[in-house]
Amino acid sequence: MTLPLRGDELARHIDVSCVQAFHSAADIAELARIANAHGFVAAHVLPHFVPRLQANLGAGAKTLVGAPVGFPSGGATTATKLAEARELVTMGAQELDLMINVGRLISGDTAYVDAEIKAVIDAVAPLPVKVLLEVHYLSDDQIRIGCELAIKRKAAFVKTSTGWSPGGATIDKVRVIREATRGAIGIKASGGIRDFATIDALSELGVTRFGINSRVAVELVTHQVGAGNGR
Amino acid sequence: MTLPLRGDELARHIDVSCVQAFHSAADIAELARIANAHGFVAAHVLPHFVPRLQANLGAGAKTLVGAPVGFPSGGATTATKLAEARELVTMGAQELDLMINVGRLISGDTAYVDAEIKAVIDAVAPLPVKVLLEVHYLSDDQIRIGCELAIKRKAAFVKTSTGWSPGGATIDKVRVIREATRGAIGIKASGGIRDFATIDALSELGVTRFGINSRVAVELVTHQVGAGNGR
Repeated sequence: MTLPLRGDELARHIDVSCVQAFHSAADIAELARIANAHGFVAAHVLPHFVPRLQANLGAGAKTLVGAPVGFPSGGATTATKLAEARELVTMGAQELDLMINVGRLISGDTAYVDAEIKAVIDAVAPLPVKVLLEVHYLSDDQIRIGCELAIKRKAAFVKTSTGWSPGGATIDKVRVIREATRGAIGIKASGGIRDFATIDALSELGVTRFGINSRVAVELVTHQVGAGNGR
Repeated sequence: MTLPLRGDELARHIDVSCVQAFHSAADIAELARIANAHGFVAAHVLPHFVPRLQANLGAGAKTLVGAPVGFPSGGATTATKLAEARELVTMGAQELDLMINVGRLISGDTAYVDAEIKAVIDAVAPLPVKVLLEVHYLSDDQIRIGCELAIKRKAAFVKTSTGWSPGGATIDKVRVIREATRGAIGIKASGGIRDFATIDALSELGVTRFGINSRVAVELVTHQVGAGNGR
């Protein structure tokens, strides 16, 4: 990709999402409308809204339909995450963001986290899975372990944040991910991304997918904010 | 119960919980320790930590083991919530807090919310289920609908909040619940409860179960804070 990312090229690297508890059917309709209008690479919704998003996008839509698994706490059992992931495949989701078990990682139970990542990725293969770390709660060492597991189990991306924790994709945290992954896996940065300066800095660190609030995403790709940084 | 609730009697009306993404095995061990030491009525953890909580509480513990379903977004599919609830029963959970589909309720899809509540309650009967509304995101009318569904489907309690949204159990929101339920169902207030003044006001409104952060709960039942309001 050519940096800096702007306009249509930026849109092809943005996942727009409506994954808060309060998002309504009207929000999903609007999400689909802007995805079709601006060519965002993917749109993510909570699992129960996947069929609605598909219907709202319409046949032949270019935007991928994504959904999270075990989101946002990561504290569901592996069995529940597997059931959820398999149902999403059946529903026709095209990419999944798997929330790891943060509590287990913090507790040093790496084997549990690894087995869960493997189980879900294997169950939905060849569907691409992003391994979601929620970096706000992790030490740099824990982030490195998460990255190693994601690479080992052949996830498509490591993803930083849910948007539910107090902090999102900071430059410092993404630098840790970059140094731990060195191009072996994609990086999706999400949470609090609102301007071109952040996008440009994250792009330089190898981020190729941005999870951005749908309203902000439209403003960015249409240059309504941060235009001073645009080309 | 005799008001105001203080000391051991207060503990018998408090659910202590560790249901954030970052809670670790060490946190669960401490949760069990304080539950046994102070006689809290229930302790709640994310589903994957239920066996650990049971082990930490030990045989013959008086504190009930609780866990949430579809928590905290409420946006899992009904099938996933059912799978999770059934697994929790198998694991020996003694009460479940079911997160309703907030997005559907806001969208006016009451039939969906109702069918899901019914499905989960029926699947785990006779296990008591608390219907968790996340009142921060709901209008008063939506809160009333949630209460009506919980009563109709014979839930044990209506519960206000997850602790994950910006707002918790406010007096105004609990008053709406009280007026909608009038004793037909228990009320569990949770989220941001930190002092005797709030507990007393909520008790007067008919709240009989308080979901309280474990550290704050210990301070309250041992009178280390808010003692000026104590008897």
